[in-house]
Amino acid sequence: MSIFSKIACGEIPSYKCAESEKFYAFLDINPLQKGHTLVIPRREVDYIFDMEDDDIAEFQVFAKRVAKAIKKAFPCIKVGQAVLGLEVPHAHIHLIPMQSEKDMIFSNPKLSLSQEEFEEIARKIRENFE
Amino acid sequence: MSIFSKIACGEIPSYKCAESEKFYAFLDINPLQKGHTLVIPRREVDYIFDMEDDDIAEFQVFAKRVAKAIKKAFPCIKVGQAVLGLEVPHAHIHLIPMQSEKDMIFSNPKLSLSQEEFEEIARKIRENFE
Repeated sequence: MSIFSKIACGEIPSYKCAESEKFYAFLDINPLQKGHTLVIPRREVDYIFDMEDDDIAEFQVFAKRVAKAIKKAFPCIKVGQAVLGLEVPHAHIHLIPMQSEKDMIFSNPKLSLSQEEFEEIARKIRENFE
Repeated sequence: MSIFSKIACGEIPSYKCAESEKFYAFLDINPLQKGHTLVIPRREVDYIFDMEDDDIAEFQVFAKRVAKAIKKAFPCIKVGQAVLGLEVPHAHIHLIPMQSEKDMIFSNPKLSLSQEEFEEIARKIRENFE
């Protein structure tokens, strides 16, 4: 069971941003920006492009809904999207509010936030999720 | 008409990797890796998350087919995916063969390739596109 499967089922705590029967969204705890969120399928799959067409379609449409909530909660020019996935073997989409393309550079230093700040960020995204 | 619309309709030349009625894939001419490809909808839309659910679903499923072709043409651990889009106002998905997550750092120096190299890379991807 991947660490993300444990997060999706609540075995490992996370800052929940949104969820559905099939998908789960939570804050990246090493965020590039406030509002940096990870979206995962509950069903464990390593490589996003191994997902069936219907599943990838639903996954991306769910990610769009999360991105819209992030943009309302954290006004930005656009929400950027990235899938890397060489570190955790469970497909995950990064959603990151961008004021500049530089905000998507994964080698940038990560923000250090308190538990209260993470909780507040996640709450704002949850409140804007439709 | 965006520069990418002109590319999709052939008004501006590009190294074509794949196409369908609705979508077009071509080489990024400032590639991070050999095989770095851009996938766009022919219909001009600036922000990917403004696309209708059905369109985003089809777009991502098409991108998956392109990613599979890239992986066959340029063996890698995974093909990474990124959508930034603050520079060209026409939604585009970057697909980049990864041996390491560092291969997706957009501030890295870009490869300098000859026209012959670009043509060879695009041909390999086209041959593997299904």
